Amino acid sequence: MFDLCLIGIGTGNPDHLTRQGARAIRDADLILIPRKGDHKADLAELRERIIDDATDGNPPPLAYFDIPPRRSDSGYRQGVDDWHDAIARAWEAAFATATPAPRTVALLIWGDPSLYDSSLRIMTRLDPQPRVRVIAGITALQALTAAHAIPINEIGEPFTVTTGRRLRDEGWPQDTETLAIMLDGDCSFRTLTGKNFYIWWGAYLGMEQELLISGRLDQVTQQIETARARARADHGWIMDIYLLKKHHADSADG
Amino acid sequence: MFDLCLIGIGTGNPDHLTRQGARAIRDADLILIPRKGDHKADLAELRERIIDDATDGNPPPLAYFDIPPRRSDSGYRQGVDDWHDAIARAWEAAFATATPAPRTVALLIWGDPSLYDSSLRIMTRLDPQPRVRVIAGITALQALTAAHAIPINEIGEPFTVTTGRRLRDEGWPQDTETLAIMLDGDCSFRTLTGKNFYIWWGAYLGMEQELLISGRLDQVTQQIETARARARADHGWIMDIYLLKKHHADSADG
Ligand SMILES: C[S@@+](CC[C@H](N)C(=O)[O-])C[C@H]1O[C@@H](n2cnc3c(N)ncnc32)[C@H](O)[C@@H]1O
Ligand SMILES: C[S@@+](CC[C@H](N)C(=O)[O-])C[C@H]1O[C@@H](n2cnc3c(N)ncnc32)[C@H](O)[C@@H]1O
Repeated sequence: MFDLCLIGIGTGNPDHLTRQGARAIRDADLILIPRKGDHKADLAELRERIIDDATDGNPPPLAYFDIPPRRSDSGYRQGVDDWHDAIARAWEAAFATATPAPRTVALLIWGDPSLYDSSLRIMTRLDPQPRVRVIAGITALQALTAAHAIPINEIGEPFTVTTGRRLRDEGWPQDTETLAIMLDGDCSFRTLTGKNFYIWWGAYLGMEQELLISGRLDQVTQQIETARARARADHGWIMDIYLLKKHHADSADG
Repeated sequence: MFDLCLIGIGTGNPDHLTRQGARAIRDADLILIPRKGDHKADLAELRERIIDDATDGNPPPLAYFDIPPRRSDSGYRQGVDDWHDAIARAWEAAFATATPAPRTVALLIWGDPSLYDSSLRIMTRLDPQPRVRVIAGITALQALTAAHAIPINEIGEPFTVTTGRRLRDEGWPQDTETLAIMLDGDCSFRTLTGKNFYIWWGAYLGMEQELLISGRLDQVTQQIETARARARADHGWIMDIYLLKKHHADSADG
């Protein structure tokens, strides 16, 4: 029986780390690091930099694990299930190599562990079950609104957070005028037509490469698509997120 | 012309502060503090503690301002407008007292400046207009999901964030199975009936007084109402937030 601490580390800026997060890194007996988790060298280095900063260059033992490949021969839901199980087995193998057996194991989670992240679900598949502790981290959505210096909601109004796939497949949801889109590999905002939409887009938020574009959607769609394609080609990867508003209150079009 | 920095400080735990936030506090020439902003002594002290921690006990000059009373004799929207204007005037008066004129003024914002907070709107009413910078902070919603160690979204699914008033007046919104409720003085979850709802409730998140209750809504409604009323009477104030799910996937009823 050990403690497993999921530490939100923010979204690319090492200074997103909270004091709570830094303390949890210092208190860990073992930190699990995905070997190719992010497929991106820039991001792998970031984790080690954050650990070094938090521990004044005296990191606790690190245990590397490979993220197993995702099989696509079963259904989507079954595929996710199997994959989460395989990751749980990889974590267990990584704990097992540590001597003495660690009492507190930490995992550094991109952004916040609650938001479009599987670690909490993978964690429930561990045997034996650790005690889990979650440390909140700055999300990509907050990095986006901070970079644009905008509120997410209109006064007293709701907002919805969803994925690019949902926007593409199901269109604008009912009952909300504000929509935040994550996990969009495909510029799904292109599916919205007309002059009624505003967008605040950001890529590589918190990082040196940060890109920001905002405006009336029909007027900036092309600009975002071009900037995104170019940046992706230059860096070999991209992460982006955006906020959409219908009938934006502060605009001349009202 | 000066810089105005809105610093998200998290929701009650001084260790929610990010390194970015701590640095912005250190870099400020002047910090504006609301004299009765939170109507709660516990919370007023927290700000000063955070500033002290970030500056090793050498805080920059602090300028206190009174939050003007909110007038209720005009319509709701006009009332909010007038109130924001009055707060902007109070900020200006507080800057004016500082000599030499500050180049970087900071305001500490509860949670994250983007989420149900007026400071970004008030800021646009300042004359002259400062350059604004926003530092993201841990929100009450993240403090809630971290405390319960739960993800906010189901895999690939959307979620909506709204207010107690909306839930009460308009019921469960379309197109979402996950709802986070903030700004609810009235236990609006009571308006949901049946056995299909699950709730994760938290009050005083991040603080010593933290309270957590979760379960099938019909089975814990009474317990939450009682705990909330008692805590409110004991402490003289309460802040609470909750996550609701319909047909929760992990439940037996699922
Ligand atoms: C698997 S989700 C993880 C989200 C993370 N847990 C969080 O709290 O932000 C990954 C998505 O987050 C968004 N994202 C994460 N980091 C980002 C960044 N630095 N810039 C822009 N978008 C980012 C993108 O939409 C990406 O598809
Ligand atoms: C005016 S909003 C400000 C939200 C803040 N900007 C944030 O990012 O969390 C205040 C609402 O946030 C929630 N809240 C803030 N702090 C909280 C805490 N420590 N515990 C529970 N709820 C909290 C409550 O729903 C409260 O009504």
